[in-house]
Amino acid sequence: MSRKKDFVDKAIAAAQEERGVVLVNTGNGKGKSSAAFGVVARALGQGMKVAVVQFVKGRADTGEAAFFREARKVFPDKLFWHITGEGYTWEIQNLPRDVAAARAAWDLASRYLSDPEFGLVVLDEMTYAFKFQWLELSEVLEVLSRRPPMQHVVITGRAAPQELVDAADTVTDMVSVKHAFQAGVKAMPGLDW
Amino acid sequence: MSRKKDFVDKAIAAAQEERGVVLVNTGNGKGKSSAAFGVVARALGQGMKVAVVQFVKGRADTGEAAFFREARKVFPDKLFWHITGEGYTWEIQNLPRDVAAARAAWDLASRYLSDPEFGLVVLDEMTYAFKFQWLELSEVLEVLSRRPPMQHVVITGRAAPQELVDAADTVTDMVSVKHAFQAGVKAMPGLDW
Repeated sequence: MSRKKDFVDKAIAAAQEERGVVLVNTGNGKGKSSAAFGVVARALGQGMKVAVVQFVKGRADTGEAAFFREARKVFPDKLFWHITGEGYTWEIQNLPRDVAAARAAWDLASRYLSDPEFGLVVLDEMTYAFKFQWLELSEVLEVLSRRPPMQHVVITGRAAPQELVDAADTVTDMVSVKHAFQAGVKAMPGLDW
Repeated sequence: MSRKKDFVDKAIAAAQEERGVVLVNTGNGKGKSSAAFGVVARALGQGMKVAVVQFVKGRADTGEAAFFREARKVFPDKLFWHITGEGYTWEIQNLPRDVAAARAAWDLASRYLSDPEFGLVVLDEMTYAFKFQWLELSEVLEVLSRRPPMQHVVITGRAAPQELVDAADTVTDMVSVKHAFQAGVKAMPGLDW
């Protein structure tokens, strides 16, 4: 047991404050959005109302969308899931720079971020909106700082800006040690989408 | 767009092989298990059968356990969730070294890892079983290598052994940049459990 880990575990045991947390999942590795979806499951299981706003439109047939659409049947009026923005591609430089779509997504997100009934708000792949300057980071940080005190927020996407990292409570850098595509394996249903 | 990222995106576009993937979520940051639960949602949404074996027994009242217990009502006979092992504590050095419990969990996991009906098997917090030498890594690697070819496996936990990283297809090191407990915030329901 390293000294550092020992310190960390003592800090966990000593922590007593209860409040909403801003969590940022960034980095180039796999897990940023799937960890957010795992937290959606966790929050619903704790009886919370949850909103998910996806800032970059992916394929419509993802497993997560199908799953949560079905799961809403047993969690009525608890989960609100929005796929906004424009088309998705790994060739990110070719994304349509649709400021209007990002703006509409943010207006939607802002409403959830001012509603204390929502215990969790997920802003999936939002960091790209800063990268391409679709949104003003300062405006987003202002709204985050004024949100209901017990509300958790999860923001995902590569290359989170430093000011967002500074403002967040918990930040995980998901580092890719290796990835199956490097061995020629394509994105697999049930694992990657 | 960096040259490295450009290469990575081209590699993704070029990948054509379809097969089961072994994914390892390791590191000290938040997201290892929640990313696994997100993949559970994704796989269920793709119509797969899913088994989850948790190797370290946590609190019984987690949001994820409550959520997936309810969600099974709309995914009958698709999700098998086992909480095995002994008591959980951040003071890991005090965990009961219950070889028998780890062995029983592994026997259960092994059955799923030989059943091609299961598209995803999650071995949550399994790395601790290697750390404390409850299980033989070589035996686990052998079973993983002989599993059904289309089956995905997600293994989570801190400090994944190098041989497991070598054998895996995709490995994410979840690095803690900062964590809310460092600012005195306790583990929060809906976010952390």
